[in-house]
Amino acid sequence: MPADALKAAQGVDKNRQWTRLMELAEIGAIPGGGVNRQSLSTEDRQARALLVKWALARGFEPSVDDFGNLYVRRAGLNPDAPPILTGSHLDSQPSGGRFDGAYGVMAALEVLEALSDAGVETEHPVDLVVWTNEEGSRFAPGAMGSMVFTGVASPQLWLDVMDDEGIALSQALAETLEAMPELPRRSFGFPVHAYIEAHIEQGPILEAEQLPIGVVTSIQGARWFTVTVEGETAHAGTTPLKLRKDALQEALAAIQALNAFMNDPEDVLRFTVGRLDLEPNSHNSVSALCRFTIDLRHPDPAVLRAKGDAIETICAKAMRACAVQVTQNLGLPCVAFPEAIVDTVQASAQALGLGHKRMPSGAFHDASFLAQHCPSGMVFVPCAKGVSHNVAEYATPEDVAGGTRVLTASIVALSGAGIF
Amino acid sequence: MPADALKAAQGVDKNRQWTRLMELAEIGAIPGGGVNRQSLSTEDRQARALLVKWALARGFEPSVDDFGNLYVRRAGLNPDAPPILTGSHLDSQPSGGRFDGAYGVMAALEVLEALSDAGVETEHPVDLVVWTNEEGSRFAPGAMGSMVFTGVASPQLWLDVMDDEGIALSQALAETLEAMPELPRRSFGFPVHAYIEAHIEQGPILEAEQLPIGVVTSIQGARWFTVTVEGETAHAGTTPLKLRKDALQEALAAIQALNAFMNDPEDVLRFTVGRLDLEPNSHNSVSALCRFTIDLRHPDPAVLRAKGDAIETICAKAMRACAVQVTQNLGLPCVAFPEAIVDTVQASAQALGLGHKRMPSGAFHDASFLAQHCPSGMVFVPCAKGVSHNVAEYATPEDVAGGTRVLTASIVALSGAGIF
Repeated sequence: MPADALKAAQGVDKNRQWTRLMELAEIGAIPGGGVNRQSLSTEDRQARALLVKWALARGFEPSVDDFGNLYVRRAGLNPDAPPILTGSHLDSQPSGGRFDGAYGVMAALEVLEALSDAGVETEHPVDLVVWTNEEGSRFAPGAMGSMVFTGVASPQLWLDVMDDEGIALSQALAETLEAMPELPRRSFGFPVHAYIEAHIEQGPILEAEQLPIGVVTSIQGARWFTVTVEGETAHAGTTPLKLRKDALQEALAAIQALNAFMNDPEDVLRFTVGRLDLEPNSHNSVSALCRFTIDLRHPDPAVLRAKGDAIETICAKAMRACAVQVTQNLGLPCVAFPEAIVDTVQASAQALGLGHKRMPSGAFHDASFLAQHCPSGMVFVPCAKGVSHNVAEYATPEDVAGGTRVLTASIVALSGAGIF
Repeated sequence: MPADALKAAQGVDKNRQWTRLMELAEIGAIPGGGVNRQSLSTEDRQARALLVKWALARGFEPSVDDFGNLYVRRAGLNPDAPPILTGSHLDSQPSGGRFDGAYGVMAALEVLEALSDAGVETEHPVDLVVWTNEEGSRFAPGAMGSMVFTGVASPQLWLDVMDDEGIALSQALAETLEAMPELPRRSFGFPVHAYIEAHIEQGPILEAEQLPIGVVTSIQGARWFTVTVEGETAHAGTTPLKLRKDALQEALAAIQALNAFMNDPEDVLRFTVGRLDLEPNSHNSVSALCRFTIDLRHPDPAVLRAKGDAIETICAKAMRACAVQVTQNLGLPCVAFPEAIVDTVQASAQALGLGHKRMPSGAFHDASFLAQHCPSGMVFVPCAKGVSHNVAEYATPEDVAGGTRVLTASIVALSGAGIF
């Protein structure tokens, strides 16, 4: 760990970052301490304007691309070197919290200021980035900005997507760009030296293990399935067990068999039955139909493939008198971050004396797509009870400052590293 | 079995009964072969009028009570002897079948005619009865007529109950009574020698065992429960198993434990989970709440009490991290028919060479309440796949004739019997 990296990390100002997070949270504030700041809305524009104001006040250079992705550059020693990118998103769920996305952006701004305050110059420029529409709650799907930047999707693909009020994304995007007319335009997909995103964990592990830093090794892959068990309805009072084709009871048998098969002593695999619907769903009727969902996730693509592919057979075996159908609705690949990035983040936490663990990310992030474009990684900080997408979302000032220190040190280390 | 009993049973005319059942089914006929003939409706009045027409054509004596329960008497040798009552109901579910209730009434009419055709006179009068509003679909609850007749409920109790169109029961009842102005009025709760009701089984047992007659020993009691499991929602991607409070998974564990506890090698106990609702019921969320229902039935009150009382403890034991609450919503007592009635029905089937089995009734009937007033019993006939409350409800002409023969022989035997 270069001395400059630790020096820059000491420049992180816990109170400044926290004050800014709280000021940002006033834009779109809703009762209970949450925010409603959906993508490309008036509130989203206000948040962007505030960020640009803060950036200009320190002499950093804001810019924007045609999809509204917003950048803030702190120049490097070599103006021709590709930048190190760090950031997240400013949009929220309709009933979202103050930290999801917003923390990654405020951490990035704090990195730039910490570098300046500490008088540390980097070889590469460091660019803060705000990805457009990560949440996907107003305009589906999410992560549009990072998908367009990395060329995963064309910028034209979603222009006609409508929000609930019939406003097209093209219109909301045009109005957002018009609100920042003075900003220079960047192109999509410019070369990036490395991308690191700071984020709340959105899970309970770091809090439970009392560790301030999660060194993210990967973003786990996911497969979503729907299982439909077809039986026959019958009178609850008159029909003996042996003559029933009870869709609920046979679905339960299937879920129990899947519980056993998905059992992971290391508790890394995620197997969730989150939805279950019955027909006729009546107190005194045997169920004719039971439809339930499976959300399966794992960081290792081989495990994800093997476990997911076995679901149909296991369900079929669990049937006694009913028929079963299994369909896959969604498949998201596993993303593994390069060891060099992961090691750098871990070394930074180590050097700063912050307890940490290597862990996969359970949720998706813009980093899922950046990883296909440049060496990428993430830093997690604990959040209260793992709650996210909720007004109760919370992380402590100390923890968000710790994450930003690790982020700062990692960026300085990566700027000096000849590893890429 | 007296010779007269068998002689009278031979008077049952399979084709006459079937033709009348089909003619009756034209009143309120709906697509798919079903009927919509809800209580005290125009169609119900038409069905009553048709029955009265058939009764008068044979010289039988119709009468009615103030709650619209309709009677048709074939006189006995002793006019002072209390009548033997037989019948069921003419009202149907909104999407009901041609046999539920209607069969018991047509069987009763056929008994009267068979006695006359066979030239068999009974000591006691035999009264056909049509109970008002057995189904309870238009005016809740059901079995009003038999409850009022037997004094379980006051005739005033439900007069203000409204149907979906805002028509009060008092009005529909008055219009029904006005449509039969010429009929003499009977009082409620007159002495009854015995009551026997013929009915389709509404279950699959007789069909599955290829037996034409069910000798009904009892109407099983029922207890309804709601079980509420409270956990905590969490992100399906980020939350390890050991930190979850998954309401669905713990509800499943409770249901599995209940399945084991309710297991009955004789398959008499009925344990059904028919409703299950989740919150938030979302693909990628661990369930915060799972609410499910239990429909528990058994003919033996001691078993019903013991099994039902244990539910709360079993559910509580099955919890790992969630909380559980169990509440009882309904309790209907077990009704056991007197051995003398059951034996008479069985002897009749035996003497007529009809395969039969003793069995409890899984569903409720007007006989549940008559049993509190006089010695009562029931005769079941098979119905296709056990389907009822459905346009597909079906029983064969041969099976409904067989049931009516057993009913006829039983009534003659009971009229001569000095057992009560």
